[in-house]
Amino acid sequence: MPKLTHFDDNGNPNMVDVSQKETTVRIAEASGYVYMEKATLYTILNKEISKGDVFQIAKISGIMASKQTSSIIPLCHPIIIDKVTLEISPDLDKSRVFITSSVTCRGATGVEMEALTAVSVAALTIYDMCKAIDRSMTIDEIKLNKKTGGKSGEWIRKSE
Amino acid sequence: MPKLTHFDDNGNPNMVDVSQKETTVRIAEASGYVYMEKATLYTILNKEISKGDVFQIAKISGIMASKQTSSIIPLCHPIIIDKVTLEISPDLDKSRVFITSSVTCRGATGVEMEALTAVSVAALTIYDMCKAIDRSMTIDEIKLNKKTGGKSGEWIRKSE
Amino acid sequence: MPKLTHFDDNGNPNMVDVSQKETTVRIAEASGYVYMEKATLYTILNKEISKGDVFQIAKISGIMASKQTSSIIPLCHPIIIDKVTLEISPDLDKSRVFITSSVTCRGATGVEMEALTAVSVAALTIYDMCKAIDRSMTIDEIKLNKKTGGKSGEWIRKSE
Amino acid sequence: MPKLTHFDDNGNPNMVDVSQKETTVRIAEASGYVYMEKATLYTILNKEISKGDVFQIAKISGIMASKQTSSIIPLCHPIIIDKVTLEISPDLDKSRVFITSSVTCRGATGVEMEALTAVSVAALTIYDMCKAIDRSMTIDEIKLNKKTGGKSGEWIRKSE
Amino acid sequence: MPKLTHFDDNGNPNMVDVSQKETTVRIAEASGYVYMEKATLYTILNKEISKGDVFQIAKISGIMASKQTSSIIPLCHPIIIDKVTLEISPDLDKSRVFITSSVTCRGATGVEMEALTAVSVAALTIYDMCKAIDRSMTIDEIKLNKKTGGKSGEWIRKSE
Amino acid sequence: MPKLTHFDDNGNPNMVDVSQKETTVRIAEASGYVYMEKATLYTILNKEISKGDVFQIAKISGIMASKQTSSIIPLCHPIIIDKVTLEISPDLDKSRVFITSSVTCRGATGVEMEALTAVSVAALTIYDMCKAIDRSMTIDEIKLNKKTGGKSGEWIRKSE
Repeated sequence: MPKLTHFDDNGNPNMVDVSQKETTVRIAEASGYVYMEKATLYTILNKEISKGDVFQIAKISGIMASKQTSSIIPLCHPIIIDKVTLEISPDLDKSRVFITSSVTCRGATGVEMEALTAVSVAALTIYDMCKAIDRSMTIDEIKLNKKTGGKSGEWIRKSE
Repeated sequence: MPKLTHFDDNGNPNMVDVSQKETTVRIAEASGYVYMEKATLYTILNKEISKGDVFQIAKISGIMASKQTSSIIPLCHPIIIDKVTLEISPDLDKSRVFITSSVTCRGATGVEMEALTAVSVAALTIYDMCKAIDRSMTIDEIKLNKKTGGKSGEWIRKSE
Repeated sequence: MPKLTHFDDNGNPNMVDVSQKETTVRIAEASGYVYMEKATLYTILNKEISKGDVFQIAKISGIMASKQTSSIIPLCHPIIIDKVTLEISPDLDKSRVFITSSVTCRGATGVEMEALTAVSVAALTIYDMCKAIDRSMTIDEIKLNKKTGGKSGEWIRKSE
Repeated sequence: MPKLTHFDDNGNPNMVDVSQKETTVRIAEASGYVYMEKATLYTILNKEISKGDVFQIAKISGIMASKQTSSIIPLCHPIIIDKVTLEISPDLDKSRVFITSSVTCRGATGVEMEALTAVSVAALTIYDMCKAIDRSMTIDEIKLNKKTGGKSGEWIRKSE
Repeated sequence: MPKLTHFDDNGNPNMVDVSQKETTVRIAEASGYVYMEKATLYTILNKEISKGDVFQIAKISGIMASKQTSSIIPLCHPIIIDKVTLEISPDLDKSRVFITSSVTCRGATGVEMEALTAVSVAALTIYDMCKAIDRSMTIDEIKLNKKTGGKSGEWIRKSE
Repeated sequence: MPKLTHFDDNGNPNMVDVSQKETTVRIAEASGYVYMEKATLYTILNKEISKGDVFQIAKISGIMASKQTSSIIPLCHPIIIDKVTLEISPDLDKSRVFITSSVTCRGATGVEMEALTAVSVAALTIYDMCKAIDRSMTIDEIKLNKKTGGKSGEWIRKSE
């Protein structure tokens, strides 16, 4: 039967013991979308109108948030992150932007949460910067796509 | 033409001047979903198996994160939050959980980002606590549903 | 019947709504002890041996922690603190130090937690700075002594 | 003569150099009490009245705080914590609750402060959640009980 | 005789009591320089080479840091900032960049530290982003230029 | 041609991949000045007038800030610091104080930013504590003096 590792047998929440786990290179990749009005996406992309680079600020926010993951997620282990990158690309046809993150560490536990937090906060930052012109934006399909390293090895999301 | 308020005319990012805005009671409500395997949702709901209350920890994480919103989102104003609540309810049919938040403040700027951050972090926490048994979970449809107060007054999301 | 205000009727934890509460000057005073070996207390007090001022660093840590109270205590409201002071005095007879704090704010909710957090962290800092010579130190009797302001008015701890 | 390691010979406070210390598994255990009115303890334990689980939230707050120890305690080293657990048990006879923590890391310095901070913040959180019905609660006997690992090896508190 | 307001008569450090001070609009402006090799400045300015916008990231870091001022500076009051802007301009002749900040709040205490912290952190971020090609960069002349609001009214730096 | 390592070829800001870099002992040393009125420096140095030790608090603030460097500087890697020291010495002739820092870690990336952040924040804290009597103080010549360890080995600032 599957077990939630964050509770012990007496129901106490805990940070799982990883002191016996191997220190290996671990990588996690996540992604997500922000759906918006077409006019909003055009405003972001047209630097004449937007005046500044929304995606750049969103990337910075995602990188900074990934470093704070263990402060934000209660039972997440602190991790010394070795690398974070975010990419954000517009999809005019579907009136959305696509955010991907990749996080690398050498540690005893994975960086799935760091990758997901990076995407989530980048998405929230896009919302914040555009909400004055489009409150209806929706953050969608935030998910892990791949992880490598550690005892459980590689995991790749099944294509739907 | 719509304008992104977070950039000035020279392209400098800034925290918008709200020093002339009225201090009023402002409320924002947001929501989102976490989709998961049916077995995962059953595990969460069956305290015999889960041993602890995943939703309770997710709610706490969302409340705590909403207080950190201005540290997480680069151009967000600090705000003295007066109230935060989160509710999380399972939807067995659709194999998902539904998260809602409501945030209240008396201030010169709204609490939309605080409400959205609360939902996002609660969703990430659910992911974190269940990822050992279900890495495919997806966070979906994070969005603002309503805001009241301030110069722009009430806004309610149009039903789709 | 007494009620815990931090849960609503459905058991959701929440930050209590204080948006209707009056903004008044509120003051809270707390105190606590750190018991230690006599030799430890002498080392702290003898600047020839200690080389530095342990109490000064403990006071700074308490002041800084009181500003972080709402980040540390899950359901605590953020508050704009107007004043924090800590005093630390040695009691050679009883081989202990006595820590007191006083916190003032103008706000919609009290600063009891800020005063208690200031004392607790000052005590922990004393422990940290002396633990190399005395691991048996004990932090004791951290308590609220007085609060004023707000709807419930003045409260003074009954002498025991 | 004992020396306070956190000051150098010129009286400068410093974070002690641990770069030559061995990386070993280190464990620390701490505990403490919160004394309260019997009615308060009954309210906490009776879920019909309390509506929610005060101890669970206190445990979460203690775990999260232990991860922030080096931000809170001025001269504490940052540490990659491998495990944190808290247990809280009621003692109706003595009208108090008993909090214990255990923290594990692999590092060059111990986790005593992490264990003590976890207990202190869990105690403060219990105070916060019950203060509306019992302002007289007292936090008592926060102390280290055991530590293992590192050059100084095992230390166990002498029974009193 | 001038007095340092951050110590009381017994030498205790404290956050000065501002609970009786008037809430007014307060503005502070600060500035500073980063001196660097000419080649470094050309690299920053030439987007073909630099690939990204160093100044934009520095501005974001300064804005975010100004919101954290009271966490970073021990005796600084928490403040609800209403506005922060930073501008960064290159000065090729003198092989340096010029950073200015302006911070506005409505509060009981000024925002001088917020303006100075914003400039300092923007300067540090420029250093960080360019240190791989120029370790000799120097941060210079960080100073307050103007403040308005509050009991002491307007202050403008005398030209040298 | 020199390259800014914090941007990839597509202009995405990132935390550089250090997962393949060797873990070695790394040391960085930085320094800076705070210029002030002579009367201000005399007030700081005369404990009869100042009542407390400004430099001690500045040192503490610098140590604490160096631990937060990766939260403050957007693309800075988190690092487990092994040692931080700050020294502050008055220079009555030139009416200034001289701040030096030394930071040590065992890691995959250097601690230059930690050393520079420590000096910057110590300088800001001195400003904060004396600004009531001297708003004209200037923070000057913050720079790296030396670094050792890592692939690029030792670097020592050329004397000017």
